[in-house]
Amino acid sequence: MSSSTVDPADPVFRLHVGGKMAVASTVPLTSREDLSLAYTPGVARVCEAIAADPALADDYTWVSHTVAVVTDGSAVLGLGNIGPRAALPVMEGKAVLFKQFAGVDAVPICLDTQDVDEIVTAVRALAPSFGGINLEDISAPRCFEVERRLDEALPIPVFHDDQHGTAIVVLAALRNAATLLNRKLGDLRVAVSGAGAAGVAVTKMLVAGGVNPDQVVVCDSKGIIGRHRELTGSKAELAEITNAEGRQGGITEALRGADVLVGVSGGQIPEAAVAGMAPGGIVFALANPTPEVHPEVAARHVAVVATGRSDYPNQINNVLAFPGVFRGALDARATRITEGMKVAAADAIAGVVAESLTAEAIVPSPLDPRVAPAVAEAVAEAARRDGVARR
Amino acid sequence: MSSSTVDPADPVFRLHVGGKMAVASTVPLTSREDLSLAYTPGVARVCEAIAADPALADDYTWVSHTVAVVTDGSAVLGLGNIGPRAALPVMEGKAVLFKQFAGVDAVPICLDTQDVDEIVTAVRALAPSFGGINLEDISAPRCFEVERRLDEALPIPVFHDDQHGTAIVVLAALRNAATLLNRKLGDLRVAVSGAGAAGVAVTKMLVAGGVNPDQVVVCDSKGIIGRHRELTGSKAELAEITNAEGRQGGITEALRGADVLVGVSGGQIPEAAVAGMAPGGIVFALANPTPEVHPEVAARHVAVVATGRSDYPNQINNVLAFPGVFRGALDARATRITEGMKVAAADAIAGVVAESLTAEAIVPSPLDPRVAPAVAEAVAEAARRDGVARR
Repeated sequence: MSSSTVDPADPVFRLHVGGKMAVASTVPLTSREDLSLAYTPGVARVCEAIAADPALADDYTWVSHTVAVVTDGSAVLGLGNIGPRAALPVMEGKAVLFKQFAGVDAVPICLDTQDVDEIVTAVRALAPSFGGINLEDISAPRCFEVERRLDEALPIPVFHDDQHGTAIVVLAALRNAATLLNRKLGDLRVAVSGAGAAGVAVTKMLVAGGVNPDQVVVCDSKGIIGRHRELTGSKAELAEITNAEGRQGGITEALRGADVLVGVSGGQIPEAAVAGMAPGGIVFALANPTPEVHPEVAARHVAVVATGRSDYPNQINNVLAFPGVFRGALDARATRITEGMKVAAADAIAGVVAESLTAEAIVPSPLDPRVAPAVAEAVAEAARRDGVARR
Repeated sequence: MSSSTVDPADPVFRLHVGGKMAVASTVPLTSREDLSLAYTPGVARVCEAIAADPALADDYTWVSHTVAVVTDGSAVLGLGNIGPRAALPVMEGKAVLFKQFAGVDAVPICLDTQDVDEIVTAVRALAPSFGGINLEDISAPRCFEVERRLDEALPIPVFHDDQHGTAIVVLAALRNAATLLNRKLGDLRVAVSGAGAAGVAVTKMLVAGGVNPDQVVVCDSKGIIGRHRELTGSKAELAEITNAEGRQGGITEALRGADVLVGVSGGQIPEAAVAGMAPGGIVFALANPTPEVHPEVAARHVAVVATGRSDYPNQINNVLAFPGVFRGALDARATRITEGMKVAAADAIAGVVAESLTAEAIVPSPLDPRVAPAVAEAVAEAARRDGVARR
């Protein structure tokens, strides 16, 4: 049976019949009096109050706890450009995770366009209906421009989860791994394999969290990124801030003597390259379902290994970040999500397991109910500290 | 206290704190196994199946039971152009009525634009996320073009409720009033006061339902619509199909000898004009909260009176139509909503009280739980008859 065939007996298809979510009323609607409060004529008083003071929408509508999960279907999971309808099951999944872990009401919005201008126009148009915008599975480099323009244009948080969700959890994991190995973040030599949405964001997040950019080397499919190459956009930016030694070559050269490998490429990395890392190192091989290097192979050469998979220890999973990040941003009525809020989220995730740190538990389980509230509180606090909170 | 001030003790504001709706997961999410079915890696199999056959989204996502309630905030209730944020409480109210009466999951989408092209572009972009589009509170004449262009462009039902919801319930009420008075629809002389979204749609619906267009006269704020006036757009169309006698003048001339007055104008109609109607007539004075003519005044001159108000008999309320219309369209996976489906909806509404008809009960109560299922069944059947059903 081909992978694109429906198997009605498959538990996955059985679970997905009719989708995974619904809308619920939170008010009674069974009497004439109920209708006259929730709908006409009563509702007109609430409309008039908001028309006079639009900020009251935060108090008297669902925007205060609601985000749109927006995709164009161009880079869905590892499946690639499968379009908006086929992306919907992932967005519904994301929405129910938002609800389950942080009580955030999320609505999937799958857009029938992959044009940057049209995506920005559509999201700007629908933004008054929501308290935040979670961008999802939009391919690089378009995702960078979409996020930047929406972040500038909208008075509500905009967050591309494939970039920042991954980056936050990687920083959390690296903090705990460093603590465990008695190393300082600022001393670590880091190789990042992959310069797409996640690779760029991970690199920036690690630097924001304390890694020395001079000691970071990033590889894309053509090899090490540096000033020796002709690059534009986010890769040119990486060439400016990383690779102070001016290294050239491929992943083997990038890994020579490195303390940390972060794999967010989907490609494969040979064992010999990992063997060239400094002793007592750290490997995060996050490609899913096939990590860049098998965790058991990596473990022969380094001290701490994490993957994106649920069947190995140390699962780096975005669900540790995005529910709490938006819960905190919404609680503080943040106008945007700052670097400080992301670093605070990473610290909070790391903090949940700080007391029980082992090489097999540098991050909490994705199901750990302590994570989202801790992240939300830290993010809301950081929003106030960074001056972007409205309460 | 001004009407735009918040009174936290007001039961309406108390009810609206945090809005009126939420999202709910319909699948379990408490174990690693749950996550692997509803989210990664399992969900990828559903995505691949839909990518290969996009129609499968109807089976395996929530689109099969979900509509967007879309407004630009330009004509909200009787409040006028209050903008998208202030419109949100009405759209949430609409959404929870969809759920309560027909189990349809509706999402409020308040657009930050009132430009026809931009509205059409935005709704086309977000359409893959929904099974239908309910347009709401968009001012005339823009609403006609928005609906027409979306209806042509999208493979899912598009329905402007202010037009067709009102028109369906008016046709239902007129059918029962005529039955009660032993009159035939085709013989009735009808005056429609108001040529906005509702007036245009009511006129077309009555004609589709059996009223003779030659015997219909429509008035706007400048008087009777006819070929003697220079008109464009939907009013020019009305001038072509109605007013065969070539009447001129105002509402008094329009009502002279008329059997039926349908008021959808918001203006006031003097008693003397109503007194000029034929004996044993019918008045639907639907302006809210102040009917065009007070129901007790109208009752001095005609046999049957209906309003839009809940505190008088015969409330003409759109909630009798829209939940069942979309439930039926979604159940049949209709690609659009035809005239036949609207007439079928009107017949179904009328049919609910056909056995118990009195002058004070020509339409069911808005809370009557029999209405939406009857409408849904009739609409789905009509969709199949009209060849727009996909199942």
